[in-house]
Amino acid sequence: MADKIKSKVYLVGAGPGDTGLITVRGAELLKIADCIIYDRLVNPALLNLAADKAERIYVGKIIGADSKMQQQQINKLLVEKTAEYKTIVRLKGGDPITFARAIEELSALSRNNIDFEIVPGITAGLAGAAYAGILLTDRRSSSQITFISGREASGKAHSDIDYATLAKTAGSIVFYMAISNLDQIATQLIANGKDPQTPAAVIANATLPTQKTVIAPLSEIALQCKEAQITPPAIVIIGQAAKPQKEFDWFSKKPLLGQTVVITRNKKTNVEFAEKLFYLGAEPIDFPCIELQRLIDAETFKKLTERLGDYHWLIFTSANGVRFTFEMLDKIGKDARLFGQNKIACLGSQTAAELKQFGITADFVPDIFTGKELSKQLGQFDNL
Amino acid sequence: MADKIKSKVYLVGAGPGDTGLITVRGAELLKIADCIIYDRLVNPALLNLAADKAERIYVGKIIGADSKMQQQQINKLLVEKTAEYKTIVRLKGGDPITFARAIEELSALSRNNIDFEIVPGITAGLAGAAYAGILLTDRRSSSQITFISGREASGKAHSDIDYATLAKTAGSIVFYMAISNLDQIATQLIANGKDPQTPAAVIANATLPTQKTVIAPLSEIALQCKEAQITPPAIVIIGQAAKPQKEFDWFSKKPLLGQTVVITRNKKTNVEFAEKLFYLGAEPIDFPCIELQRLIDAETFKKLTERLGDYHWLIFTSANGVRFTFEMLDKIGKDARLFGQNKIACLGSQTAAELKQFGITADFVPDIFTGKELSKQLGQFDNL
Repeated sequence: MADKIKSKVYLVGAGPGDTGLITVRGAELLKIADCIIYDRLVNPALLNLAADKAERIYVGKIIGADSKMQQQQINKLLVEKTAEYKTIVRLKGGDPITFARAIEELSALSRNNIDFEIVPGITAGLAGAAYAGILLTDRRSSSQITFISGREASGKAHSDIDYATLAKTAGSIVFYMAISNLDQIATQLIANGKDPQTPAAVIANATLPTQKTVIAPLSEIALQCKEAQITPPAIVIIGQAAKPQKEFDWFSKKPLLGQTVVITRNKKTNVEFAEKLFYLGAEPIDFPCIELQRLIDAETFKKLTERLGDYHWLIFTSANGVRFTFEMLDKIGKDARLFGQNKIACLGSQTAAELKQFGITADFVPDIFTGKELSKQLGQFDNL
Repeated sequence: MADKIKSKVYLVGAGPGDTGLITVRGAELLKIADCIIYDRLVNPALLNLAADKAERIYVGKIIGADSKMQQQQINKLLVEKTAEYKTIVRLKGGDPITFARAIEELSALSRNNIDFEIVPGITAGLAGAAYAGILLTDRRSSSQITFISGREASGKAHSDIDYATLAKTAGSIVFYMAISNLDQIATQLIANGKDPQTPAAVIANATLPTQKTVIAPLSEIALQCKEAQITPPAIVIIGQAAKPQKEFDWFSKKPLLGQTVVITRNKKTNVEFAEKLFYLGAEPIDFPCIELQRLIDAETFKKLTERLGDYHWLIFTSANGVRFTFEMLDKIGKDARLFGQNKIACLGSQTAAELKQFGITADFVPDIFTGKELSKQLGQFDNL
């Protein structure tokens, strides 16, 4: 089986925007991908999961340009990259088989005898509804959801939407890519018998901290969206489920919603902090103002380590200090054993936790994390 | 903000079955949950993500029993558990707002002033189609997907399904929970004008290694499912997209599909291996036949470590040996520094990788991973 590993393309759904909504499998594939080919609606923060050496190729289509030609170029690129790489992730916004031109791309792969897998993603229609507190099904009244594309495929002579049937369709109707045609859609549905008072909701930037919801009767939704300056991407939900229900609206209750937070720490420590802010509703902006640099070279470091025996105690004052020390140790072919004769103190529990990662349990951490307190408390040890 | 942390219930979608299809956010919440309340259609392997101390409560409904009463008991349980725990995950198969009675549960929480969040999941309709190679939308022909529940809510006097409209509905129709009513559904659609030759596909155990697909014209699908002994859970897809297209059928090409593999190693090392088998298509069965036990107590271990200075080389023969040694070191308040005077060899790269986790880079790993080869090659070092 391991004779020759064939290249494989993974058609992966990135989900609707919130980076936490990609699947575990999708995230794992991003981590091991040699090359990632991604669309306009993919949250670029997901690319941080990839290895530094992975090639990232943006293929977001230019609106207004020849869509068919652009799609053919993407198909061609997918095939070409398999000659170069083993693991290629084709990352698409939402779900890769829902209004995502999967057929064109998979046909190209299949024609060229290239293996592929599909990794589903959370589609914006379902996630946007959930984040807006719109529960699309209700066993007592709505046991049907219709997903429909509001954008006409280029080259079609007239609308494919059968408004007569759609106006009679029960349950919740979810339009994708419908903002620019919303006026026409609402007018046609009403002309075909849909109650003008039917609740309608438009959710822009679904699942992101910038999510914005407009709720109005079907007859007024297009105008209200224009007034609220709603722009794509947005989904439109039509049906009784779209009527405002404050009790289910959990997302807009987040304590930091609508607030932008600039994080100035260094990139590495930003990620976890940004995630915490995000789940409180804030929009974190990565703006690292600190860059950490080693002050000594390996040669100087090596000389210093040769004199370790002269000292009883070694004191780490920060987690970064720990990290750099062990990176340098690795460089000179040494490890934790080098400190065999030293006692080790850490200034702070974070520093001690970092040290533990490298195999050493700090012998002492002062109660108060200052240099002054440390020197005072170290006095209790009789070998000083 | 940290004055008093309120309890929170997370309504999490477990996805369709494949454990890799839960969202990253859902998986993170399972890891930190104090309590998990889960349904029948949730893959129980997902519970392995949870902490040992997390309470796991199964609330799968008993088919045939009073469904309304059972739902009320679940609602009550959710509310009660918030008095006991801070982080409660309500884990539902598929997506939590798609045919999942989210309204009843969230209403109960809201009435009791309990905070909640919704974490969407991959719905079986989309994932089952993707795994069966059925591409539900095609910009040239099918720009609509209808999700519909095939099971009638208990207490309803007659069918809520408007077959006249449904028979005229364009695109792909995806029925959930429809297996027991499949004959009636097909008959009604045809009676209302749907072409009897319309392709239909039934996908049972979607996304699991036991996934089974039956494809037939609408007029024959119910009979063929009966003959193939298809049982729930299954989804039914009706429409041109359901017609067999070998070129898109990636899942059934997996090299180990249909094979069951019993893994006899110990539980801890099983997980990663099971995942590899799973993505090759096999159904891994966890059957640990090995239980590793420490042979010496901390006191004896401590005495042995006091004589480390008598030896030049220390040899680790397995990753488990490394793990146990460092567990014991931790117990007697020591760490990697204890080996300050020893050279260290490892029998195998896995063993060396494990050792690296504990802060030590092996000084020597033989090319061939046997004790004989190790002793032969160690001869090259002059301090032996």
